[in-house]
Amino acid sequence: MSKLKFYYDLLSQPSRGLYIFLNLTKIPHENKSVALRKAEHLTDEYKENINRFQKVPCIIDNDFKLAECVAIFRYLAREHKIPDNLYPEDSKVRAKVDEYLEWQHNNIRSYCALYFRYVWMNPLLGRKVNPEKAEEMKDRMSDNIDLFQEIWLNSNNKFIAGNEISVADILAACELEQPKIAGYDPTIGRPKLKEYMELVRQTTNPYYDEAHKILYKFLPENIAKPKL
Amino acid sequence: MSKLKFYYDLLSQPSRGLYIFLNLTKIPHENKSVALRKAEHLTDEYKENINRFQKVPCIIDNDFKLAECVAIFRYLAREHKIPDNLYPEDSKVRAKVDEYLEWQHNNIRSYCALYFRYVWMNPLLGRKVNPEKAEEMKDRMSDNIDLFQEIWLNSNNKFIAGNEISVADILAACELEQPKIAGYDPTIGRPKLKEYMELVRQTTNPYYDEAHKILYKFLPENIAKPKL
Repeated sequence: MSKLKFYYDLLSQPSRGLYIFLNLTKIPHENKSVALRKAEHLTDEYKENINRFQKVPCIIDNDFKLAECVAIFRYLAREHKIPDNLYPEDSKVRAKVDEYLEWQHNNIRSYCALYFRYVWMNPLLGRKVNPEKAEEMKDRMSDNIDLFQEIWLNSNNKFIAGNEISVADILAACELEQPKIAGYDPTIGRPKLKEYMELVRQTTNPYYDEAHKILYKFLPENIAKPKL
Repeated sequence: MSKLKFYYDLLSQPSRGLYIFLNLTKIPHENKSVALRKAEHLTDEYKENINRFQKVPCIIDNDFKLAECVAIFRYLAREHKIPDNLYPEDSKVRAKVDEYLEWQHNNIRSYCALYFRYVWMNPLLGRKVNPEKAEEMKDRMSDNIDLFQEIWLNSNNKFIAGNEISVADILAACELEQPKIAGYDPTIGRPKLKEYMELVRQTTNPYYDEAHKILYKFLPENIAKPKL
């Protein structure tokens, strides 16, 4: 049994990002699946013994508890030998990866997650969805995905911080997959983004598909599914 | 003339955080004030030559451009010798600082900034403020500040990641100052928070007060001002 415990739900975007990272880097770990749909993260026991934020993903390394996906990437990159490209040692390249990791919180991450929660989660929770509000949220998300393309995919580089994949790309692709469940495919009308996401997928497979298997199951009819 | 150029507006929370950090660490830099109220960040020249996100703060180190306050802290901590407590070398303590830096984006940072923008900026821009919406936003912000206190100030430590101040505390305090301009003092009814913010101020002065001088000028009558 490994000492690093990884708590996750594959319907959570950063959980998938960390799942892919842990498998790509071969960091020994023990998978601890947490079913958000069963509110397993909302128990007192979870709050007290696993993660005081009551979220996924998180880790416990021996007795050291850590939450926040980006903080976990950085911690694991210090504690283990990992392929340099994933979180580059070069100070300026690392700064560019960091710049994306900080930027995404109030951009891609919020917009895609908000739309997903509003359109897909609300009906499951018995809450009404206001079609006008859903449309507004879709527009804002769509503008933000355009901005993502314009800012982060506008060079001749294949990936966000250069020609090799980093944790920034893994996290970006995992976020951009999420609105698909709610019926919005961000790659439609965005050939550059489509190519980029496919490249992230190929570069990180088989772990990318493993991480997205459950999400793909939930995709509505009108959204293209990769053949697994 | 130093090679590091620092672009900022002291009415921006992360700008103040970085201002304090740069002065505490004595990293040589050249101040480049950007007046957000004059939309100096929205020009094509700024977008092209300074910061493609059209925001503050950002830096240009020789010809290396970097945005996102947290990414900048990390970059500067690698490039310069800084007091260890500000961004600790110890992997686990650093992870705790990182955990806060990632957590704050969609917590303290969003709630305090959203309230400030809605209540204080809108009237300046000739937009109406709906009192009910303002009240709802205030409640959400207030709940989040309670959560901040509960989660981050609940140990016997003086600061977020231990008994010494780190960039996490600097950023937290700068965010928590912001709603004061909009007439909301987060320290009222929260003695622990009040003591914490005063400690951050004392530990980082005279730079804390320098950074907040303009903000203090804008404080409404009902909000307590420190004597400068």
